[in-house]
Amino acid sequence: MTKHLIAPSILSADFARLGEDVAQVLASGADVVHFDVMDNHYVPNLTIGPMVCQALRDYGITAPIDVHLMVKPVDRLIPDFAKAGASIITFHPEASEHLDRTIQLIKDHGCQAGLVFNPATPLHYLDYVMDKLDVILLMSVNPGFGGQSFIPNTLDKTREVRKRIDASGRDIRLEIDGGVKVDNIREIAAAGADMFVAGSAIFNQPDYKAVIDQMRAELAQA
Amino acid sequence: MTKHLIAPSILSADFARLGEDVAQVLASGADVVHFDVMDNHYVPNLTIGPMVCQALRDYGITAPIDVHLMVKPVDRLIPDFAKAGASIITFHPEASEHLDRTIQLIKDHGCQAGLVFNPATPLHYLDYVMDKLDVILLMSVNPGFGGQSFIPNTLDKTREVRKRIDASGRDIRLEIDGGVKVDNIREIAAAGADMFVAGSAIFNQPDYKAVIDQMRAELAQA
Amino acid sequence: MTKHLIAPSILSADFARLGEDVAQVLASGADVVHFDVMDNHYVPNLTIGPMVCQALRDYGITAPIDVHLMVKPVDRLIPDFAKAGASIITFHPEASEHLDRTIQLIKDHGCQAGLVFNPATPLHYLDYVMDKLDVILLMSVNPGFGGQSFIPNTLDKTREVRKRIDASGRDIRLEIDGGVKVDNIREIAAAGADMFVAGSAIFNQPDYKAVIDQMRAELAQA
Amino acid sequence: MTKHLIAPSILSADFARLGEDVAQVLASGADVVHFDVMDNHYVPNLTIGPMVCQALRDYGITAPIDVHLMVKPVDRLIPDFAKAGASIITFHPEASEHLDRTIQLIKDHGCQAGLVFNPATPLHYLDYVMDKLDVILLMSVNPGFGGQSFIPNTLDKTREVRKRIDASGRDIRLEIDGGVKVDNIREIAAAGADMFVAGSAIFNQPDYKAVIDQMRAELAQA
Amino acid sequence: MTKHLIAPSILSADFARLGEDVAQVLASGADVVHFDVMDNHYVPNLTIGPMVCQALRDYGITAPIDVHLMVKPVDRLIPDFAKAGASIITFHPEASEHLDRTIQLIKDHGCQAGLVFNPATPLHYLDYVMDKLDVILLMSVNPGFGGQSFIPNTLDKTREVRKRIDASGRDIRLEIDGGVKVDNIREIAAAGADMFVAGSAIFNQPDYKAVIDQMRAELAQA
Amino acid sequence: MTKHLIAPSILSADFARLGEDVAQVLASGADVVHFDVMDNHYVPNLTIGPMVCQALRDYGITAPIDVHLMVKPVDRLIPDFAKAGASIITFHPEASEHLDRTIQLIKDHGCQAGLVFNPATPLHYLDYVMDKLDVILLMSVNPGFGGQSFIPNTLDKTREVRKRIDASGRDIRLEIDGGVKVDNIREIAAAGADMFVAGSAIFNQPDYKAVIDQMRAELAQA
Repeated sequence: MTKHLIAPSILSADFARLGEDVAQVLASGADVVHFDVMDNHYVPNLTIGPMVCQALRDYGITAPIDVHLMVKPVDRLIPDFAKAGASIITFHPEASEHLDRTIQLIKDHGCQAGLVFNPATPLHYLDYVMDKLDVILLMSVNPGFGGQSFIPNTLDKTREVRKRIDASGRDIRLEIDGGVKVDNIREIAAAGADMFVAGSAIFNQPDYKAVIDQMRAELAQA
Repeated sequence: MTKHLIAPSILSADFARLGEDVAQVLASGADVVHFDVMDNHYVPNLTIGPMVCQALRDYGITAPIDVHLMVKPVDRLIPDFAKAGASIITFHPEASEHLDRTIQLIKDHGCQAGLVFNPATPLHYLDYVMDKLDVILLMSVNPGFGGQSFIPNTLDKTREVRKRIDASGRDIRLEIDGGVKVDNIREIAAAGADMFVAGSAIFNQPDYKAVIDQMRAELAQA
Repeated sequence: MTKHLIAPSILSADFARLGEDVAQVLASGADVVHFDVMDNHYVPNLTIGPMVCQALRDYGITAPIDVHLMVKPVDRLIPDFAKAGASIITFHPEASEHLDRTIQLIKDHGCQAGLVFNPATPLHYLDYVMDKLDVILLMSVNPGFGGQSFIPNTLDKTREVRKRIDASGRDIRLEIDGGVKVDNIREIAAAGADMFVAGSAIFNQPDYKAVIDQMRAELAQA
Repeated sequence: MTKHLIAPSILSADFARLGEDVAQVLASGADVVHFDVMDNHYVPNLTIGPMVCQALRDYGITAPIDVHLMVKPVDRLIPDFAKAGASIITFHPEASEHLDRTIQLIKDHGCQAGLVFNPATPLHYLDYVMDKLDVILLMSVNPGFGGQSFIPNTLDKTREVRKRIDASGRDIRLEIDGGVKVDNIREIAAAGADMFVAGSAIFNQPDYKAVIDQMRAELAQA
Repeated sequence: MTKHLIAPSILSADFARLGEDVAQVLASGADVVHFDVMDNHYVPNLTIGPMVCQALRDYGITAPIDVHLMVKPVDRLIPDFAKAGASIITFHPEASEHLDRTIQLIKDHGCQAGLVFNPATPLHYLDYVMDKLDVILLMSVNPGFGGQSFIPNTLDKTREVRKRIDASGRDIRLEIDGGVKVDNIREIAAAGADMFVAGSAIFNQPDYKAVIDQMRAELAQA
Repeated sequence: MTKHLIAPSILSADFARLGEDVAQVLASGADVVHFDVMDNHYVPNLTIGPMVCQALRDYGITAPIDVHLMVKPVDRLIPDFAKAGASIITFHPEASEHLDRTIQLIKDHGCQAGLVFNPATPLHYLDYVMDKLDVILLMSVNPGFGGQSFIPNTLDKTREVRKRIDASGRDIRLEIDGGVKVDNIREIAAAGADMFVAGSAIFNQPDYKAVIDQMRAELAQA
């Protein structure tokens, strides 16, 4: 069975002591660092760029870093993030006119590549790239806007993507981002997801390990 | 005599332990935190946004934070940075079609306002806003591109701006950013500057206080 | 049976005496005011904005106002139109990168929300939003360009959308805009439409009531 | 002596009965109809386009119509407005990369041409076009944003432009737009302006003639 | 049986003696001149425009010229290319918000119209325009980027498009561009293509006729 | 005395036999090849890119090639043109937000750098770059639009630039482009220009040498 991966989003970490906070969440059982990049163009917010990614590597973080680019255009930042230590780079298909080329660019720089789907984005962008993807990320909230909860029809969408992945016979991670919590992680896993981004659900708790353990317990029953 | 202000640019600080590094540089005698915001559109790089500013305030940093917006468009980020604890917000005149309005927007949110001039940008943008500005920032390198040294004709430009400030009778800070070091800070101050951004010149040294003390010693002779 | 709605497009009304002309067409039996907003970016024309909508409400128009946004970007105008009295707001999926969010924004401001499909736009944008839409508007001409007649394959597209609406079990209006006339309205209704935009077909006639009555008579036979 | 022209801005007129309202303000002594066009790109608002201009002409308005384009890009709308009955077309120099060409385009379509300066926009854009302009319009508020009052340093700017016009020996109108009222119109005229846009100052009063007469009385003393 | 068309891409021809080179390749048995237009916006390169097309016509080239627009926006160049002698004009659906209108514009100017699909672009853009297209062009490399070889899953995509064309009952050319060579042209034809763009495969050889004859021989066996 | 340079614009050459036509005009006494690059964004036309420049070098053209970039953005094309054999690269200051950086980029690639001024563009963009420029190009028509004649006030502008060049003490070429002919070249030289672009004035004549000789004769009297 594929291991379920838990990927805390550092948007909810403490940026004043980021190395320490990230190290702690990893020590508490998290698998992957989810790194949210916003450029105030693709989404109405600006967050963090390659230098912050590099700082985590320099601090000694060795876990995979999963860079989610909420930016437009996409290509110029890819070499910078690869050089700064990214392991996975995902982007939105609406943000690049040359999807195949962008995926190839990520891979040429030694990273795994993924596509991200907004809640209303249809899945047809998968039609001719399934043989090249390492990750498919479904947003269960609208990226870049605050205060949202998990959009329920993401579960159906997850099931559809799971079918397409299984049909492809390839090893593609199915990642969900937005409103994932102890309460709903089992149901999301049951729909077919195997990688879970969680921000405030983990970082806003006093004991990261306790939350992650609860998530693991739920996942074990999925 | 106006006090000279030293403003370390946090682009050269350690983003993995930013609170600690900024606290240390302030304890070493720096006056202001210079906060470089790039959006991968106005300049070909993406750095840090309002959440990182907020994290510094939450960490307990109380020194003025001087936010330099290398972004286009400008207005959407102003309320976010004001709320996140910015003290000064500066922007590039080419990046806003409504300069007067943007300046007013910054002030309405309780911050000081400034214009930034790229090395080749002429000074005519000052013609109808001198009565509203708190800061004029001259770039002595091209923002967003690495590996540059201080552009010499910035000294003449500094002298021209100093004249305009003195003629205005207003208390406007004249800030220089790019390639400022112990070696040239005295000359820059002599040309009329009174606020100095320094990045690697401070943060890449083992002893911040030693560098800042050297800068102060140079400034005392300007 | 769902009532068929007739929605005169005020682009063909007299802008010099708009209140009176709109009141007259409503008194002649029209159900809804169709309000065409063009911004000279999404389409090569600029028409009317929120202030004109507000003026109709101030004049005393109480019928639903159906605002069709042919603009890009979309989100900034939504609160303005909601405040100015819009009842329905529709937009083009290609004009917003965050469809789900834009739909939610419209609803949060108390309006009904709809998507508009250009003649060649495929229907896949419906895949993950059927549970949130109140209206689906199919363009049977290219918006913003003059002198076109009804594009015949819109009828097939109408039938497909009708099937999707019926399958959803939800109460979603199916609206057609472009070249609708007494001559073809019955056929369009037979294909599944239940809301009909007509501009010159109504306003260019001396007797609005006569045209609308003829349309109703045709619809009764659909 | 050049006659002072009063140009009511129809943004403050009643869009539900625009023909009647405009006719009334002209009958009350106004000289020119000021027509504010916003596209939600150059300014954050969308107002009215060529069709509304045409409707005024069709209604029988024969006074000059002074079209102020707060749009970007500019050129595509010029032929449309010329055809719809515009007399004067003004635009912002930042909104066109080919100023000389845009001015020529306006004139080739039989209209008078003007440049508009935002409050902070310097006057250097005049350097090589003084021989081609018919109007110079100074904004005394920021266009497209509500709730502002007359920016005082516009008076100095008016005096500078007056000098440049007089030096040119050409007959160029000097128009002021923003916060013009009975209280300040005399001072503005004394600074050199000879064309005055007023919106709410006229249209929000019960008796247009009374306001315009008061303005004329003030102007007579300038 | 439909004749297979060979369309040498003039990107690989000698621009210093273009008329002669194109005449020679046509004399060697090529059917159509493939004309690649890049604008440094839709793709990161800038090539040639309408004047070069016109020069070929003036030189005496009478073969069909197949203009592939890798530009965004599209519409402004269509009349220019039609006037300059284009026979076919194809464009990318992502580059035009009004597909149906753009297709119509091409036809109104007397040319044949086609859509181009990037390697990852799904086929749903065909859903409502099959009745209007003359050509469907599938890219088997990413346009505008150098040094790529034929992307294998283009063969499956070719088969799918062939089915849609056959189902439509219309005479639509199925064109393939990117990495087409003597070695793979038979397989591509077997998948359903009937028009073949080849650049360096032809122009980089000393004997154009030899290559084209080899291609014909392969095609004869498809 | 500085030699006057004559720079035929290849926009008027025969693109079907460009190598031969350019070689002929150089053999007839021209000094420099003027190469007009338009991208359909900065100006409404698309012409020729780096591959055509490379073809001229490959053909054996060794004269300086003076590349005039009427494109926006600018920077991406500079390395391509340098590699393709450009000698001089000029660009429009409105088309780059980082003038100093763009000039430096041109020089870092081994080319001479220049700024181009549209007819209405003021000269203030020269204020902080005179120490870095090799060429100043004044447009005496609007670039990218056809059928224009020499704009007379370019002569005054030429005189102003001549003064600035002389004051700088540097060796900067002053180039004029647009409507230059045998009839006016002497007057333009007298105003201070020393490099002259001519397109149709040369290429539309049967005998290039005759025209160039006439221009030289006129220049000898300036």
